[in-house]
Amino acid sequence: MLDTLIKNAVVLTMTDSGVIGNCSVGIKDGKISYVGADTPEAREVIDAKGHIVMPGLVNAHAHTAMCLMRGYADDYTLKSWLFDKVFPVEARLDERAIVAGTVLGMAEMIRTGTTSFSDMYFCEPAVAEAVLKAGMKANLSNAVIALGDNYDFEKDRAVIETRTLLGKYGVSGDVRADVSIHAEYTSPPHIWQRVHEWAKEYGAVTHIHLSETKSEHEEAKARHDMTAAAAFEKYGILDTKTLFAHGVWLEESDLEILARHSSSVAHCPVSNLKLGSGVANVRAMLDARVNVCLGTDGACSNNSLDLFEEVKLAALLAKGSSFDPTALPAYEALKLATVNGAKAQGRGGETGSIEIGKAADLIMIDTSKPNLRPIYDSIAAVAYSAHGSDVEMTMVNGRVLYRNGEWLTIDVEKAIREVEEYAVPIVLNK
Amino acid sequence: MLDTLIKNAVVLTMTDSGVIGNCSVGIKDGKISYVGADTPEAREVIDAKGHIVMPGLVNAHAHTAMCLMRGYADDYTLKSWLFDKVFPVEARLDERAIVAGTVLGMAEMIRTGTTSFSDMYFCEPAVAEAVLKAGMKANLSNAVIALGDNYDFEKDRAVIETRTLLGKYGVSGDVRADVSIHAEYTSPPHIWQRVHEWAKEYGAVTHIHLSETKSEHEEAKARHDMTAAAAFEKYGILDTKTLFAHGVWLEESDLEILARHSSSVAHCPVSNLKLGSGVANVRAMLDARVNVCLGTDGACSNNSLDLFEEVKLAALLAKGSSFDPTALPAYEALKLATVNGAKAQGRGGETGSIEIGKAADLIMIDTSKPNLRPIYDSIAAVAYSAHGSDVEMTMVNGRVLYRNGEWLTIDVEKAIREVEEYAVPIVLNK
Repeated sequence: MLDTLIKNAVVLTMTDSGVIGNCSVGIKDGKISYVGADTPEAREVIDAKGHIVMPGLVNAHAHTAMCLMRGYADDYTLKSWLFDKVFPVEARLDERAIVAGTVLGMAEMIRTGTTSFSDMYFCEPAVAEAVLKAGMKANLSNAVIALGDNYDFEKDRAVIETRTLLGKYGVSGDVRADVSIHAEYTSPPHIWQRVHEWAKEYGAVTHIHLSETKSEHEEAKARHDMTAAAAFEKYGILDTKTLFAHGVWLEESDLEILARHSSSVAHCPVSNLKLGSGVANVRAMLDARVNVCLGTDGACSNNSLDLFEEVKLAALLAKGSSFDPTALPAYEALKLATVNGAKAQGRGGETGSIEIGKAADLIMIDTSKPNLRPIYDSIAAVAYSAHGSDVEMTMVNGRVLYRNGEWLTIDVEKAIREVEEYAVPIVLNK
Repeated sequence: MLDTLIKNAVVLTMTDSGVIGNCSVGIKDGKISYVGADTPEAREVIDAKGHIVMPGLVNAHAHTAMCLMRGYADDYTLKSWLFDKVFPVEARLDERAIVAGTVLGMAEMIRTGTTSFSDMYFCEPAVAEAVLKAGMKANLSNAVIALGDNYDFEKDRAVIETRTLLGKYGVSGDVRADVSIHAEYTSPPHIWQRVHEWAKEYGAVTHIHLSETKSEHEEAKARHDMTAAAAFEKYGILDTKTLFAHGVWLEESDLEILARHSSSVAHCPVSNLKLGSGVANVRAMLDARVNVCLGTDGACSNNSLDLFEEVKLAALLAKGSSFDPTALPAYEALKLATVNGAKAQGRGGETGSIEIGKAADLIMIDTSKPNLRPIYDSIAAVAYSAHGSDVEMTMVNGRVLYRNGEWLTIDVEKAIREVEEYAVPIVLNK
């Protein structure tokens, strides 16, 4: 007997099986145990008539707690945004505020169909507990930044937190540790190598910001006499799994390097435009066989965590910037947010597609609304017409986290109150 | 006694009054008769606590009935999209199908906060009746295309429909006639001048596609020895109100021409990217004092009629393509979809802002959801974080068209059925 059966669905498997109409998905012990035309017995039956069922989305680059600063610092130059607004606030944020912001962000992600995210921020051991409570999946890291003569690796909070996460969660399970070098320009190569030691020892993903802005990219070249990607390769950082965020200014030779080492790039189109960084060449990355996935970045430079926006914008920008409407078709855009995201997180065998044996990380999209009708092609409907608000149900490991306007693991009113009563005064320094 | 009072709202007036907290908006005979801190007596009181109230949005370039082809022709080259997919379908569509598609599109627009739209399509006299029934406002036109030696102006369906619309509705009222030259490349100057005669006689807006693709722009220059904008000026077409769609490839001299004649440009960022046309330079247009507004274009090249997407994307593209995050701030982006759109439609005195004497064309945005919290700045919240799905109420002339999941003037289930049972088989030629 199955635990749950979702029946009568249009299923986007995101595998070679393609789109299956009138299909059932059976769930047992949190895993997908049946996909097909029959309706095996189950303790709970969800009728998905008029709905599309697809894998939960993967947000591969997030600073989730930055929801605290959603709408706090818009339309500033990058430097002013960072130095006048973001950094001073971050220096004031405490663990309670960061957890509050993360819970708010998770409420939004769950509501808009994201089931797993890669988070790079502070107080991650406390964030880990909040993630477990919310029932999501996350790869968590606190990025090492080693600036100044007095930097002491052993005393760095990022180092301490990384060790805590690695020790407590390792690199498997719903919550797991990533290791993180913040970026080329915020630490020297000998520090990268210390982070890399963890990656080797634990098999962790190394999460790194890379070539986000032109000046950053050019300054790296001046510093290392090679691009940042090449420098990371030179110091051996790419020998283990790497997930690079942004990659707006990557050169052709960088793409070869990243492809050779099976690196992933989290494309963050909204944030890259909003901060005036530019447009990453996703088509070129995919052609070079780089694993491209999608990220929202923080809500302070977005200002949304709805991954459906990123899917559509990734497709639109690839087409618009190449003057070629075939540049990134709907299915490839959806792959970025599912299969490729899962792979980037080291969860390729676990989530990102609907197939027997994978976790039941699923979302159900209500297609009864006018914005999704008529439907000639379910893939196009999801990539180009759907919004996160069309998600009616979000499930992780077979457990329903959101359905029909109700969050089952987060008290959203309380989460908003905690953000606005506790954290916002800290942001505003009041 | 007022008819309706909306109280406790955060009101984005889109005037010099800015954002007013804890504000009431009073409505009498379909018009705004009060804006302020008091709560005058009214027959109906809407408590807008926790809501933002702002002007309804104006979609200044739409082919609404193309909802029939939503998701029917994605990821094709522009030529193949037009000649293999769109044109053959349009040749088959009849009035009943077009009305069905328009009603579906209006359901989506009403739900996502659009109260007025400029439609360019076929069977517009029948569309006009559907618009009146739905309670929206629209400028309607059937564009003149005069190709081939056998073209007969008097027998052109677009000409006949334009005369009907002008005669029946004139250029005032909720539904009104625009006149339309499809584009520079689809008719010769002497035909433009015949269309222009109507514009002069009636004071109608002339709605024209302009410099959407590079090849179109270049071919116009070869044909006229000047740009399309300059050619329209030369033949006097700009002497009356003009609304140009797209303007992706406009040159600096074109902007001067358009500004000199108080022309409007409907920027359609999603469609321009999706068809691989490029990115219009909105900042340059605004700096040149061209009235820039926003359009969704048809759902076949979008595939959504949610104007909130266009607002955010307009801001993002202006920033990203100039590498300047200050290029188009939130407030200016919102102006495109409100004040400027109204002006482009010739409705500047009637709608697009919240001030006494204007029509009560209003929307109410529910800010209780996590994606809109916290709110430091209501303008940024609406421009960067809100989606059309956050609209809780849409009102035109004081009449509620949508509220809380219910459409009050459109039977949406029936509209979808009509589209899928009657029109989709025509699209599919079955």
